[in-house]
Parts: sequence; structure tokens; C-alpha cells
Amino acid sequence: MRPLWDVPIGQRPSWWQRRTPPQMLAGSFILLIALGTVGLKWLPGICHEGVRLSWLEACFTATSAVCTTGLVVVDTATAFTPLGQAWLLLLIQSGGIGILTFTTLVITALGGRPSLRQEASAVGNPLEIGYHRIDARQLTRHIVLFTLTFEGIGAILLYLLWVPRFGWEGAAWPALFHAISAFCNAGFSTFSDNLVPFRQDVPTLLVVCALVISGGLGFLTWEELYLYWRRRATHRFTLSLHSRLVLTTTAMLLLLPTPVLIWLEWDTTLKDMSWLDKCINAFFICVNTRTCGFNTVDHGQGSDAANFLLILLMSVGGSPGSMAGGMKTTTLALLMVLAWSRFRGWEVASVWGRSLRKQTTDRAIGLFVIGFIAVTCGILLLSITEARGSNGGFLPRMFEAVSAFNLVGLSMGLTPQLSSAGRCIVIGLMYLGRVGPLALAAALAVQARLPGKFRYAYEEVAVG
Amino acid sequence: MRPLWDVPIGQRPSWWQRRTPPQMLAGSFILLIALGTVGLKWLPGICHEGVRLSWLEACFTATSAVCTTGLVVVDTATAFTPLGQAWLLLLIQSGGIGILTFTTLVITALGGRPSLRQEASAVGNPLEIGYHRIDARQLTRHIVLFTLTFEGIGAILLYLLWVPRFGWEGAAWPALFHAISAFCNAGFSTFSDNLVPFRQDVPTLLVVCALVISGGLGFLTWEELYLYWRRRATHRFTLSLHSRLVLTTTAMLLLLPTPVLIWLEWDTTLKDMSWLDKCINAFFICVNTRTCGFNTVDHGQGSDAANFLLILLMSVGGSPGSMAGGMKTTTLALLMVLAWSRFRGWEVASVWGRSLRKQTTDRAIGLFVIGFIAVTCGILLLSITEARGSNGGFLPRMFEAVSAFNLVGLSMGLTPQLSSAGRCIVIGLMYLGRVGPLALAAALAVQARLPGKFRYAYEEVAVG
Ligand SMILES: [K+]
Ligand SMILES: [K+]
Repeated sequence: MRPLWDVPIGQRPSWWQRRTPPQMLAGSFILLIALGTVGLKWLPGICHEGVRLSWLEACFTATSAVCTTGLVVVDTATAFTPLGQAWLLLLIQSGGIGILTFTTLVITALGGRPSLRQEASAVGNPLEIGYHRIDARQLTRHIVLFTLTFEGIGAILLYLLWVPRFGWEGAAWPALFHAISAFCNAGFSTFSDNLVPFRQDVPTLLVVCALVISGGLGFLTWEELYLYWRRRATHRFTLSLHSRLVLTTTAMLLLLPTPVLIWLEWDTTLKDMSWLDKCINAFFICVNTRTCGFNTVDHGQGSDAANFLLILLMSVGGSPGSMAGGMKTTTLALLMVLAWSRFRGWEVASVWGRSLRKQTTDRAIGLFVIGFIAVTCGILLLSITEARGSNGGFLPRMFEAVSAFNLVGLSMGLTPQLSSAGRCIVIGLMYLGRVGPLALAAALAVQARLPGKFRYAYEEVAVG
Repeated sequence: MRPLWDVPIGQRPSWWQRRTPPQMLAGSFILLIALGTVGLKWLPGICHEGVRLSWLEACFTATSAVCTTGLVVVDTATAFTPLGQAWLLLLIQSGGIGILTFTTLVITALGGRPSLRQEASAVGNPLEIGYHRIDARQLTRHIVLFTLTFEGIGAILLYLLWVPRFGWEGAAWPALFHAISAFCNAGFSTFSDNLVPFRQDVPTLLVVCALVISGGLGFLTWEELYLYWRRRATHRFTLSLHSRLVLTTTAMLLLLPTPVLIWLEWDTTLKDMSWLDKCINAFFICVNTRTCGFNTVDHGQGSDAANFLLILLMSVGGSPGSMAGGMKTTTLALLMVLAWSRFRGWEVASVWGRSLRKQTTDRAIGLFVIGFIAVTCGILLLSITEARGSNGGFLPRMFEAVSAFNLVGLSMGLTPQLSSAGRCIVIGLMYLGRVGPLALAAALAVQARLPGKFRYAYEEVAVG
């Protein structure tokens, strides 16, 4: 893969300039986590008096914040001062904007940024833009602006909703914190029991849901929707296949499991709620399992079937080019399109009158398989290290591993009880879940080193 | 896909002759299960006095026998008379030979039968054989002979080993039953507690292991090994890629997890055993999770980590063209080869100096994904229907669904407690696990209906 920056001809590229995007990504996240850990440990006034974080706890919290996961081993509300919470928020914001910029850069470099191609066809030269001369600086500026706009609107709405509850002054910090945490799909909260106190506050839940969904759709889709809206008069702009797949899959993943969840959780976590609250809370669960991780109920009390369904939803996650984790909505959509095409006997996978390149579907399969392997190893390791834990059963361990790798941050209550080895595994899963898919997507796009002209003799292997 | 039989030109094919192999397979297994169910229910002298099977129990038992799964809701030892056990054995044998013949036919029709290609290259016309004129009658004769030979040798060995224990007369029936049950990878036993009484009888365990491994390797590999042995003097025969992948993967799957299992189960199921017995029993577990399903220990007492490892092993199963279930050793090998090739940046997946066709790796991916979906649905359904069961926990339900779909027949003790709905789900999983992979392999080989010349415009979708 090409390094990120163009270097003027005749000038020797510096060490920095020779890094490929996956290397930059992996390195900068390690750096950010290290910085966050040291800050949590050494900055004065981070923790309330009497609270002392161990190095492992600091590292766990910093990784969880930078990777926008939201799993916590220390209570954000009682352990950290407002300064400590602000430090966490800074880590969340940098991690979120960092990953957003990186993914968008890589997708743009791979020629997958729909808006640019649309611009290019309008100008008349489809080849020049997309693969060359990405203006990284302008892109970053757009992304920061995009993020701050959404977070600002969200913070104002939450502030207005929370003034009656916390007063004019007291509502400001929680509103800002939760708006950023929701839009970055981080799921951190300044309340000890997360959003459980708001389970019957329908407007708050809906605002949070809107922020989470917006954050999970991704910059690319929003950019396109914006262009679509700006040119609605001329009708010269049609949504790309990418955005149509993202929007359709997201809508289906939000609406289809909600009734199932209402049915499965009717007598467990959704007990003692009115009919409307049951619906809203089930929808809230569906929104937050992919991959924000706020919770209004105790998932440790949920039925096995519901929690297994949540595990499946967590594995899907958000959309590419967003701050969300998981194997992504487009991966699921591409796998289903591929299966349907194969089932119909089509040689080329096609959907809505468009064909998909083999590289594209290959990347989806690769993400699925690698994610499957990583999560499987995580579950196996956690079930070994946490064999002696008091929180019995296999499902909480499986839930924890899936939640960590897919950056969700929901838990059946296992996180605070994790052994040191278990904490290290979860840290590893969070880091892999953040950096892995993007690095893989970039690696799969590498030019074939064994050129197409040379290959060994084909030989058949029986399958099935 | 071409129907199974060539019809002389000018003659209208009968309804039978127009069936494709997947349709024949699905139909004949339904027929066999129906026959088995009715036989168990209505034949006189099948059950001991006082025992009455319900229709559901009869159907469950027949399906388990025909699909060579080995899950039981009624105790084979105490519920069935020798006549009833003989009826079960007949179902196992027909189901086993049936699937063996069908898979071998389909693989031969797809051009994946290595021995035939070798013959063909020796004769000089590689195209004529393989795709055309499969002599189904001769092939069936070979398969029956192959099966009876192995089972005969196994039965004699087991008889000799069991005479001291059961006497000259008493040893005959168990020896024959277990030899057939082992070679067909069925895992049915005439003892109430399966092979637990033999846990310290090393020779018996080794003979059973040899039978299970032989049965799981598949007819194609044995046919090739036989040809290889017959021509060892001239050295003109080299093993095909298929057989090399099968043998290597099988060896790795037998040897690598054994020490891990010894470590994980040291203080649980392998407790109270000598060092040698621990090793032999761990090896026995490794052999039988893929996919025979005899057990010498109570897996319900195992550690979560060990049982999760067993779930992974169960999912792999045996080799194609055998009586074993699962996603198959070659599927795993192909996925790993594909991942390695992509990682190295090769355009064509290659291993040991051979390239793999895209159709071949596609079939492997298809099997993996479809198996994953089927098992996931099974787990979800079982965790809904068995929510009220006394045998607590999520893992036993997951174990049961994986065991049923992959035709293993191990259980953490849930099978006898299954609700009626749960039993129906397990019956469905067993049937799907038996018929599904082969039908899928055949379906994926269907000629592309959307010809290669026409396709929609390509469009990129961002992944990851
Ligand atoms: K999260
Ligand atoms: K079996």
C-alpha cells in the first residue's frame, strides 16, 4: 500500500513519511493508549481522594476510552474527578476522530469514497480523483467539523432535557460528556449505573439513540447524504451502492430484532415496564449493541436466548468509516448478497443492478473469518483464565469477549471481576478490534506479489 | 447439475431418472428416516417389555441412527431388545453406506476423484473419465466391500479383546455393533454408559480409535492409498493434493489438541486416572469429537474451556467422502491456505506447488458460512425452547446444537431432558447436517445462470 503522503520528487522521504497507513494506525493507537495510561496514573487530580489506580486498571481504562469500547473496571462516576472524566473524554474524542480520519483516508485511497467519484464524474475525469492526491488536511478538517456539529447539537438537546433533573449548572457536564460518548459510540457514562436511571425518560433515550445511530453511520454516508440534499433540486445526484447498503442494513438491524427482543425479554430485563417503555427500551438495546454500549437494563439478568441474540448483533457493529467497531454492516450485506448470488447461480455477485468486484467480496469474507477467529480465541482464553471466577457460566465470558473485540462495552457483569490475565486479554481484544479490521482491509488491497501470469497447476480438492 | 444416470438417447427419462443428486439424497434420507421411525414404532419385539416409544422418540432415534449422529433420548441398552438394536444397526449401516455412495458419486461427477484422474492420465485421456460415465453400480460395490472389510476386521479384533470380559457368546454382538458403529462414526453403543467402562482398557480404546479414524478419512483417500500401495514398486503414483490435505489436517487435528485437553481436563474429567490413561483418554476424546461421539468420560463435568475446544473440534468433523459430518477437514485446510495466500499477497491460492481454483475455495467458504448460520440458528432456538430446563447454563445448549448439526452425538447431558420442541430442533439439525453440506456443494457447482459475458457495472463498497 502507498504511504499516506506524497513526497516532492527529489526529496528523500522521512521515516514518518515511509509509514503505510496500517503501520501509522497501529502505532498511533499504541501511543495514544500509552499517553492515556500515563496520564491516568500520574496527572494530579484525576482520581478522587483515596482512589488509587493500578497500572493495569489505568491501561484498561485508557484502552477502553481510546478504542471507544466502554468496558470499565473502575467506576467512572465515583473514581474520577471531573478533571479525570475530562481526560477520559479527551481520549475518547481523539480515538474516535483518529479512527474516523484513518478509515476515511484508507477508503478514499482504495477508491471507495462515493462522493469523490460523483464529483469526478461531474467534472469529467473519473480516474484522476479518488486514487491520487487526497487532501488529508482538508479531509481531517471536514471530519472534525462534522463530529463537533453532531456532538454540539446532541449536547444542547441533552442539556435542555436534563436541566429539570440536574439544574442549570449540573446538567452541562453530563450533557456534554454523554453527547460525545454517544456520538463516538463509546458508551462511557458519568453515572454509576450508566443510563439505567433514564429508562423511563423517552426523550433522553431517543436523543441518545439518534446520536448513536448518526455516529455509527459513518462520515462517508453523511457526506453523501449532505451532497444529495444540497443537489435535491437538480436531482443529478443518486446515492451510491455503498450508502444504500449501509442505510438499508442499518434500518433492518434496528427494526427486525426489536420485536424479538421485546418477546424474549418480556419477563426478564423488561419486566415492570409499561408497554411503551418496553418497546423504547428494546429499541434502545438494539441501537446500543451495535456498538455504543450504553445500557438501561442489567444484561446479566437477561435470558440466554436474548443475550445470544445480542452477541450476534454486537458482532455486526456499525458501518465502515465510522467510530463503531464490529465486522460492519457492509460486510454483512456483502456476505448476504454473495450468498444470494451464488444461490441463484450468478457468476458475479450483484445487487440492485450493480456488480461487486471479487476483491470487495473477498475483503468482506476475510473480515468475517478473521473476526471469527479472533473472537473464538478470545472466548477460549477468557474461559480458561476466568474458570475460577464467582460469576458462573460460559455465556458471560463469551459475551465479554465479543463485546470487547467489537468495541461494544456491554457486559453481563463480568468486567469488574476479571482476573489480571483476563484484563490483559480484554485489552488485547479491544486493541485488535480497533486496529485489526482496518489493517486487514488495507493488507488485502496490497498488490498481488505473485503476479497473475504465473501460477501453479490447478488441482481439485473435494469439499463437503 | 446433471442427473445421476445417463439415459439412452430417444428414451424419455422417468421421474426417478430426472432427479438431481441433491434431490435424490434429500429424498432418500427422508424415506430412510420414515422407514426407521415406523419400524421402531410398529415392528414387534423391538423394545423390551414395558417400554413404549412415543412417535417423537422413535423419530429422534431413527434420525440419529440414519444420520449416524448418536444422540439418544432412550437408552439403547435397556430400552431395545437385540432385535431392536439390530434394526438400529441396519439404519446406521444404510445411512452410512448411503451417504458414502452419494458423496463419492457427487465428488466424482465434479471431477474431484483423484484416483480416476490418475488412471486417466495413465491411459492418456484426462477428459473422458471423471466427468462422464461414472459406473455407479461398480462404485457402490467397491464402497460396500470397503466398508465391510474394515468393519469385519474391527469386529474380529474387538471380539478377541472382549471375550475375557463377556465370554465366547456374549462378546459377539457388542463387538459387531461397536465395530459398525465406530466405522460409520455413529457413536451408538449397546452399553448404558457408552464406553465409560472401557476407559482403562487401552487396547479396546486404540482399536475403536483406529476404526473411527479410518471411517473418518473417507473412501477416496483410502482408494488412493490402496493404489499408492499397489504401485509402490514402480513409484509412478503420487498422492493427490486432496489426500495430502486430508491426511495432514487429520493428523494435526488429532495430535495438536490432545496435550491441550490433557492440561485443561487434568483435574476435571481426567481426574483419578494414571498418566498413561489421561493421555489415551484425551486422545480418544480428540478422535471422537470428530465426529464419532463415543465417550469414556462425562463431558457434562468438563471445564468450560475444554468443552468450548470440543465445540470447535466438532465443527471441523471428518473428511469429505466419508460417513463423518462437520464442515470437513478439507474446508478447514482450504480456508487456512486461502488466508495464508491472501496474507502473502498471492492472487491465486496455492499450497505445496499446486494452485486452487476459485470455485474450490468458494465452496469451502460457502460451507463454512452456511454451517455457521445453521448452527447459530440452532443455538438460538435451543436456548429459547430449553430456557426452562433444569440443566442450567448456556454451554450445554450450544454444545448440543453443534453436536447435532455436525453429527457428533456427544452431549453435556442435555439430550434426555430436551423438551418436545427441542427434540424437533435437534432432529432438524441432524437432518440438515447430513444432507445440507452435500446439497450445497452440488448447488454451488451449478452452471452460472447469469452468463459471464453479461454483468452489471462494478461498484465499490467500503469494507472494514
Ligand atoms: K462502545
Ligand atoms: K456420530
